Amino acid sequence: MRAENLDRFLSATGRGLHASAIRRMGTVADRRADVISFAAGYPATELFPLEELRAIAADVLHGDGLAIQYGPTRGHAPLLEALAEEMVKRSVAAEPPDLLVTTGSQQGLDLVARVLVDPGDTVLVELPTFTGGISAFANAQARLAGVRVGAQGLDLDDLEGVTASLRRDGIRPKLLYVVPNFQNPTGRLLSQPGRRGLIEWADRHDCLIVEDDPYGALYFEGEVAPDAVTPIKAGDASGRVIYLSSFSKTLAPGFRVGWMAADARLIERFEIAKQAADLASGTLDQRLVCEAMRRGVLDRLAPRLRAQYRSRRDAMTAALRARLDGRLTWIEPHGGFFLWATLPPGEDDTALLERALDERLLFVTGSAFFVDGSGHDTIRLAFSAVSEALIDEGVARLAQALDRRPVGSEASDG
Amino acid sequence: MRAENLDRFLSATGRGLHASAIRRMGTVADRRADVISFAAGYPATELFPLEELRAIAADVLHGDGLAIQYGPTRGHAPLLEALAEEMVKRSVAAEPPDLLVTTGSQQGLDLVARVLVDPGDTVLVELPTFTGGISAFANAQARLAGVRVGAQGLDLDDLEGVTASLRRDGIRPKLLYVVPNFQNPTGRLLSQPGRRGLIEWADRHDCLIVEDDPYGALYFEGEVAPDAVTPIKAGDASGRVIYLSSFSKTLAPGFRVGWMAADARLIERFEIAKQAADLASGTLDQRLVCEAMRRGVLDRLAPRLRAQYRSRRDAMTAALRARLDGRLTWIEPHGGFFLWATLPPGEDDTALLERALDERLLFVTGSAFFVDGSGHDTIRLAFSAVSEALIDEGVARLAQALDRRPVGSEASDG
Repeated sequence: MRAENLDRFLSATGRGLHASAIRRMGTVADRRADVISFAAGYPATELFPLEELRAIAADVLHGDGLAIQYGPTRGHAPLLEALAEEMVKRSVAAEPPDLLVTTGSQQGLDLVARVLVDPGDTVLVELPTFTGGISAFANAQARLAGVRVGAQGLDLDDLEGVTASLRRDGIRPKLLYVVPNFQNPTGRLLSQPGRRGLIEWADRHDCLIVEDDPYGALYFEGEVAPDAVTPIKAGDASGRVIYLSSFSKTLAPGFRVGWMAADARLIERFEIAKQAADLASGTLDQRLVCEAMRRGVLDRLAPRLRAQYRSRRDAMTAALRARLDGRLTWIEPHGGFFLWATLPPGEDDTALLERALDERLLFVTGSAFFVDGSGHDTIRLAFSAVSEALIDEGVARLAQALDRRPVGSEASDG
Repeated sequence: MRAENLDRFLSATGRGLHASAIRRMGTVADRRADVISFAAGYPATELFPLEELRAIAADVLHGDGLAIQYGPTRGHAPLLEALAEEMVKRSVAAEPPDLLVTTGSQQGLDLVARVLVDPGDTVLVELPTFTGGISAFANAQARLAGVRVGAQGLDLDDLEGVTASLRRDGIRPKLLYVVPNFQNPTGRLLSQPGRRGLIEWADRHDCLIVEDDPYGALYFEGEVAPDAVTPIKAGDASGRVIYLSSFSKTLAPGFRVGWMAADARLIERFEIAKQAADLASGTLDQRLVCEAMRRGVLDRLAPRLRAQYRSRRDAMTAALRARLDGRLTWIEPHGGFFLWATLPPGEDDTALLERALDERLLFVTGSAFFVDGSGHDTIRLAFSAVSEALIDEGVARLAQALDRRPVGSEASDG
């Protein structure tokens, strides 16, 4: 069907589109047999509550057919009510007017970018940060400035420094994008004092905060107190925090059901933007998720997910200690899906990935998560979707890939 | 949660967002009991093949859980194969590289707008046209210029005139948005010579055509030959036509599964834009739709839909003839969901809608579909989602609303 090159018709957005490195990795993984993938942050398929969902689907598809008719853009009303209750559990007072169902939380990011970001606006993101956030803001032609992530999550001192530096250039950042709980990609948890500090910073500099929280429910019991994951939004007196979350990691991602909680006036704007983006999120999907909440499926599942992902984290750290101690360094994550590792001096993430592919191992290069071009000495290893036995084998392949570094490359790369 | 007015944070897009008149009507309908709605173009809920879908859902939710895992942005591979076959049935040669699954065809419109339209670009649309198209292009800050719709669909003479007039002002339109089959809102069918004329026009003026085809399968047998709905895309030798379609009118809209067929290079750009918009369309939804295609559910359903919607069209035209002959004028649609009516001289669509609401009747004001501020003497009546008995009652209410026009308003309105 390709007759001639039509690139002359592309908009500035169309020309500058930012493809996801993670999605590319997924495509590679699909094509190769016998690959172990630490790349995509997929939830464990074998933990999906398929039987319960099958029963729910049979019930929901009975009756009047409204389960597959068009639904309101704002979301299925009983789901909005259930989300309001869920937000209360998360210490956030939100009523349905403050809520919008989104087609995954990726759509929440996209709506934020479109409704709030003009080309050239400055958006602060973590160094490193989630590539889906980078793409959404970059596609809105934002200028992205990075703030370092430390042991306690986003580094408030660096945030003040970056803000001051921008101010000296006459630039006021419009919003800060942050993943406080078991951050993608580092696995770090932003401390509660740090969260209060962010609110104080946003009030002082008149900025908005976009809080992306897909992993909060997946804290590892005994390592982290449940209230350590209390959202930034819980302390938001001025309405500056736009909170995003999702069922993709706690139920299943194929439903594409996420939500936003924010100032009701902003929610109205996001809703109108969503009308033209996809009219509404899937009606059946929303009803399935809503019933899974009401029937306690999610509440029963959560402790099992926490335990299973902790076991996988344990398997990965045990394998790393056994096979790569002293060569890789990492900070143990206490929740979520990801382990963030720093490579030996002189090693390069992209060169290592090429050798890892030869060993039939996938991960995501750390540099993909940095908006400042750095991070080539880091990699992200997702332990969420790989069995414990294969985690060990994957780490063995990683060790082999590291071993295969060409002689003399340290000097030239370093 | 509303602390202060945050409007100062809105982007130009956020400030200028264009809400859908149809979606607003839907919200009104939800809130009032005993309303008959000719407003939203919903498919008939009672025609959904619920039992077959329930069986498919039970099968699809068996097994490995991949039915609710993340899927590729491009779409579920077997669905892409099935869509390629479907396009062949529609006389269009399209392989999977030319196809993208979208979250309803509304997302197709949105991706087109974002990837192709820069602020200030001129987009040609029909007078009148689908409001979701208006919203998508307006949100991309397009300049919208209208081309009249005549008895044979889009008026090619007017198209040449509008193009020439724009050229004189130094403006080259970037694309033309057209709904050739049983157009929303007029129900008109663009003639096959007209379709060839559009391709010729696009080649001559170096423009793209966005062909939106949700209703093509819903031609009324015996009134229209099946090949009358052959897409514009079938004659597209130069790759200028971006074809959009959907399962929303032929299976069910709650799945939010649509697709695009276009030049493979453009499809790549749309796919990358979709990554950041919602990562992928619903995995379960795509598998349900795919199985419904494979098991012949759609093929068995289509003749029934055509017959039923024709019966409803018949019910509406019979009621109009019986109750409003000589007062309303309309052209009988030969497919799709909509009847387009012209009001008596001096009547105004918005004023009539207010009186109709008092009679518990909803429709969409014609002016909502015009980008040039005209159309106040027209209304759109959707017959698709209302039973034959209620169609008659709805038309009776319309007659009452027309009767209740204040004395003397004709002179002042006219």
